[in-house]
Amino acid sequence: MPAFSRFTPLFESLPSTVPFVGPEALERRRQQTVLARIGANENGFGPAPSVLAAMAAAAEDTWKYADPENFDLKSGLAAHLGCKPENIAVGEGIDSLLGQIVRMVIEPGMGVVTSLGAYPTFNFHVVGHGGRLLTTPYLNDKEDLQGLLDLVRKENAPLVYFANPDNPMGSWWDAESVLRFARALPETTLLILDEAYCETAPQGTQPDIGSLIDQPNVMRTRTFSKAYGLAGARVGYVITSAENARGFDKIRNHFGMSRVSVAAALAALTDQVYLQQVIERIADSRERISAIGRTNGLLPLASATNFVAIDCGSDGDHARRIVDGLLEHGVFIRMPGVAPLNRCIRISAGTAEDMALLESALPQVLKTL
Amino acid sequence: MPAFSRFTPLFESLPSTVPFVGPEALERRRQQTVLARIGANENGFGPAPSVLAAMAAAAEDTWKYADPENFDLKSGLAAHLGCKPENIAVGEGIDSLLGQIVRMVIEPGMGVVTSLGAYPTFNFHVVGHGGRLLTTPYLNDKEDLQGLLDLVRKENAPLVYFANPDNPMGSWWDAESVLRFARALPETTLLILDEAYCETAPQGTQPDIGSLIDQPNVMRTRTFSKAYGLAGARVGYVITSAENARGFDKIRNHFGMSRVSVAAALAALTDQVYLQQVIERIADSRERISAIGRTNGLLPLASATNFVAIDCGSDGDHARRIVDGLLEHGVFIRMPGVAPLNRCIRISAGTAEDMALLESALPQVLKTL
Repeated sequence: MPAFSRFTPLFESLPSTVPFVGPEALERRRQQTVLARIGANENGFGPAPSVLAAMAAAAEDTWKYADPENFDLKSGLAAHLGCKPENIAVGEGIDSLLGQIVRMVIEPGMGVVTSLGAYPTFNFHVVGHGGRLLTTPYLNDKEDLQGLLDLVRKENAPLVYFANPDNPMGSWWDAESVLRFARALPETTLLILDEAYCETAPQGTQPDIGSLIDQPNVMRTRTFSKAYGLAGARVGYVITSAENARGFDKIRNHFGMSRVSVAAALAALTDQVYLQQVIERIADSRERISAIGRTNGLLPLASATNFVAIDCGSDGDHARRIVDGLLEHGVFIRMPGVAPLNRCIRISAGTAEDMALLESALPQVLKTL
Repeated sequence: MPAFSRFTPLFESLPSTVPFVGPEALERRRQQTVLARIGANENGFGPAPSVLAAMAAAAEDTWKYADPENFDLKSGLAAHLGCKPENIAVGEGIDSLLGQIVRMVIEPGMGVVTSLGAYPTFNFHVVGHGGRLLTTPYLNDKEDLQGLLDLVRKENAPLVYFANPDNPMGSWWDAESVLRFARALPETTLLILDEAYCETAPQGTQPDIGSLIDQPNVMRTRTFSKAYGLAGARVGYVITSAENARGFDKIRNHFGMSRVSVAAALAALTDQVYLQQVIERIADSRERISAIGRTNGLLPLASATNFVAIDCGSDGDHARRIVDGLLEHGVFIRMPGVAPLNRCIRISAGTAEDMALLESALPQVLKTL
């Protein structure tokens, strides 16, 4: 069956690769049940009971479209963050917002700066809009702020992506370094400061909201998918200047948000006591993952996220064998895609049951290598 | 607060208008509570109890991303429709899919054919990708198939949009006419056949799935937002050739679907008995709306959808006064945006309570005009 014959040359040229293969797809292809789902940086501690109650209540109204202006959620976020609702744009997860931002800035052939091995879905959107990926390597497993800045200047790039804390390494910069970087950028370069993992980072990692909100070349992205435990709900948001935030209205899917998901996010935001409990459980789980790694002669890296990258001491093939071997035991993890980061495996925080499965399976896998 | 200074010229040029103002926004701006929500072609009869149960069960798993391949939903749809899962692409409502299709086909300056007064959100996406809208008027309140075809040929347009049944008029063509139209199109013109309202249409309105699935210049769009009562869930799908369907993977938001929403859609698909009951209630409500219109000296048009367009016998200003007047009574309806369609108001099917409010308010509003 052929395809339509007159798609755009750009669309025709795009590869068919997907950013991530999900655990369900792995289960189907390998006929292997996932018992410990600790590969996608989801949050197995789940959302608060108050959130589940809010979702159940909202389900009754699921015959209604969500408010396309996301008024309540923006108001709640603004009150929580200390900014104005006008400074916020809401979307179907950070992934959707990244696609929109790339579309706002990138025309075919334009250069976009990111770190070599950073978030693949951002790269997917850049390629999808015809942008050229320009990368600088990680330095000591951290994104290299000076390297990113130098590359932006050299290439006069209109867009740069930087995640703090970082995925897939879990590393982070302090707020002062981030501010210095953001302020050193040319005003003709838009910074996407991806803070998906900000809730689990140490105090002093995020610049104050007020410190960057007046800088129109900065968009900060955040999500309810990680610490809030709502990956399946698809609620992300951008914090930026009011003019920038309004710009999303020109291209976004105005009726794209699930009504139940918006109710879930609003309830999650309200229950900060539960969030703090989960953050502590994530920290404990990170310790547990690190200890399991060390017991098996591997080197866990420090992490400000809900996952731990573990240096397995060799190359990508070796790490891949560990990832594949763990899956045979029902333990789903992932690994960075690019050398030298791919000497590591990446394990998400999880429940005590998840950790017990990991603890049991890892030495068995390593023994076979 | 200024905006970023280096957005693309296309993005800068886009208007800030939004496709639709939601009822929540109207409530806030007019400080008026909506009592009868019968303006957005939602389905106030709501989803099946089995769907609410499936949503509650899925909420427990909302910490997990949805399967990015949408395997279960595609399989369920394929079995229901009589095609292969490979013929289906799933997205966050038809609106999202329309945006993706426009992106696949349209480069700035290209002409796109639609009917004057047809779906505004499609137009929003065309303009958003720099396309030029080329329109042909409705003929006797139906989309003019010959007019669309003539315009496509004259302009060598790569994309044409046609909804059957139509929104906002509720009119429809029989399957044979649709097939003839689809087959007469140049193979270099992609037809979006929007069947959002297909479930409520008379037998013989939709071409068989098999009749167009081998034609690579046709994409049919459908949704769970209307008859299935799941507007707030955001689940739409495309039926097309396998090659076309695979193409969505190049640009879609792979992790864009809400997990609870996917579960809801799958459960809704399974409960066809409930769907048939709702379709009957919608048909009864259409009758009721038409009767209320006639009682008030207005002319309801025949409808194959979950709404009724009512000719108010004058111009757009007159109809606008009726829409605004009804809102003051808490009755939210909408109207077509363009003459001569905007001599009509458009009222969605609703519950007995909704109809009672409409019946009481309409004569009061008309008396004031």
